[in-house]
Amino acid sequence: MNKIIDGKMISNQLKNELKLEIDKLDRKPCVVDIQIGENDASNIYIRNKKREAENIGMKFIHIKFDENIDEETIINKIYELNKDDSVNGILIQLPIPDKFNQKKLINCIDPIKDVDGLTTENIGRLFLNEEGLISCTPNGVLKLLKINNVDISGKHVVIVGRSNLVGKPLIELFLREDATVSVCHSKTINLKKYTSDADILVVACGVPKIIKKDMVKEDAIVIDVGINKIDGKISGDVDFDQVYDKVSLITKVPGGVGPMTVTMLLYNTFYSYKKMNGLYDE
Amino acid sequence: MNKIIDGKMISNQLKNELKLEIDKLDRKPCVVDIQIGENDASNIYIRNKKREAENIGMKFIHIKFDENIDEETIINKIYELNKDDSVNGILIQLPIPDKFNQKKLINCIDPIKDVDGLTTENIGRLFLNEEGLISCTPNGVLKLLKINNVDISGKHVVIVGRSNLVGKPLIELFLREDATVSVCHSKTINLKKYTSDADILVVACGVPKIIKKDMVKEDAIVIDVGINKIDGKISGDVDFDQVYDKVSLITKVPGGVGPMTVTMLLYNTFYSYKKMNGLYDE
Repeated sequence: MNKIIDGKMISNQLKNELKLEIDKLDRKPCVVDIQIGENDASNIYIRNKKREAENIGMKFIHIKFDENIDEETIINKIYELNKDDSVNGILIQLPIPDKFNQKKLINCIDPIKDVDGLTTENIGRLFLNEEGLISCTPNGVLKLLKINNVDISGKHVVIVGRSNLVGKPLIELFLREDATVSVCHSKTINLKKYTSDADILVVACGVPKIIKKDMVKEDAIVIDVGINKIDGKISGDVDFDQVYDKVSLITKVPGGVGPMTVTMLLYNTFYSYKKMNGLYDE
Repeated sequence: MNKIIDGKMISNQLKNELKLEIDKLDRKPCVVDIQIGENDASNIYIRNKKREAENIGMKFIHIKFDENIDEETIINKIYELNKDDSVNGILIQLPIPDKFNQKKLINCIDPIKDVDGLTTENIGRLFLNEEGLISCTPNGVLKLLKINNVDISGKHVVIVGRSNLVGKPLIELFLREDATVSVCHSKTINLKKYTSDADILVVACGVPKIIKKDMVKEDAIVIDVGINKIDGKISGDVDFDQVYDKVSLITKVPGGVGPMTVTMLLYNTFYSYKKMNGLYDE
């Protein structure tokens, strides 16, 4: 049996499904990515998103503001995009320069178009178990497990990392699936005690290879959300080579959760498109 | 050493502090409690809140709608109260009859006046660690621990119950204090495994005396949020008589978390008053 959860293959499969749906539409879904200032990593991410979006027939608009722009101009642009019926998704490419108020800018986005799921409104809906847009990486983690038919109910899920972007949304997403959820982080004493009890271990703390063989349970399922660069090489938060033999299912970095993040963004944009056009029927 | 965390005493102390603050004010803080339909328990709760509010010099307005009222009338009343500068807190007394849309009504309340902390906006702010109103019972639990100088950082906090009202907000409140947090619920397999590892155990699942002696760790701190009626007697979710000898600190039911809930409502109303009048300086 192949133990590796192939995020690339699964996301290709999901993108193909989306493409088939979008092919049927006259007016295509459209997502707008707002970049503020210069950032090499952001440039690469945006290029990838654009390619992925266009590959499935989605419109992708990249708006780039100079770092010296005033906040008001950005806000007005967001309001304009909120009102524009042809725009289904709006996101602000993070990080943005410190001088801007990130929360304020994000919360200018209409929650229905907030395809990164980062507005206060969508976070609130998530934790109240109301319908809304769910941020892409945690949503991608759940999707990977579900497509692999992992039974989550009653399982002990241990999340390492408590970020607003990944760790916290995961708590709620796993609770919805009836998992018992433990959340560990940098202040956790005896991390191994928790991780080695996990049926499903999700690591999103940004510490390269922190999870070693003695920290995982036999036959555990391990999802590695970390993307760290060491000596120019990409590495996850899990020491893959060490734990591989011990686990029953595991993601690789790269090629695991990473590809799912962009795919869930496209997925969210298509969801918003359907909601905005009265086509949502689930 | 006295092991019992006396919620009644602590809430009296907090109310006295509030009273001293309010005594200094010309215009008093005001909270409005909206009741829809008839409910004996609600009648008692409202009477208590009114008495407690008035005892500290706060204005308490009880608005009671007949069950046959149309939703629009309630919504218009909420909008009117939102605009009224003399009103600092608005809450809808739960439960309300099924035919009303509870989420919709709650979300009509201006977040700054949402003293129950139940609007999507305030739940979102809570989980994003932004300033906002925090729902009263979980906020009261944290207050009890802090007033007793309990060191929460690095501790294993186990929460039994995942309600929107108590369990979920507690996750975030304890994460903020750097605890490692585990969340158990009705679908948890082997509840004892988790509870018996808790340094701090918070039980809010509504199952009378579910927590027995063999389910708590020696010297644990136990907070019982349960309020259950058995044969006309109030009982918590913890078997107090069984676990008392084993723990280092414990709340009683009644007289533990219960009194804190109303106190935190008054506290939240005062907070909103200060925010609305530019007096908030923390």
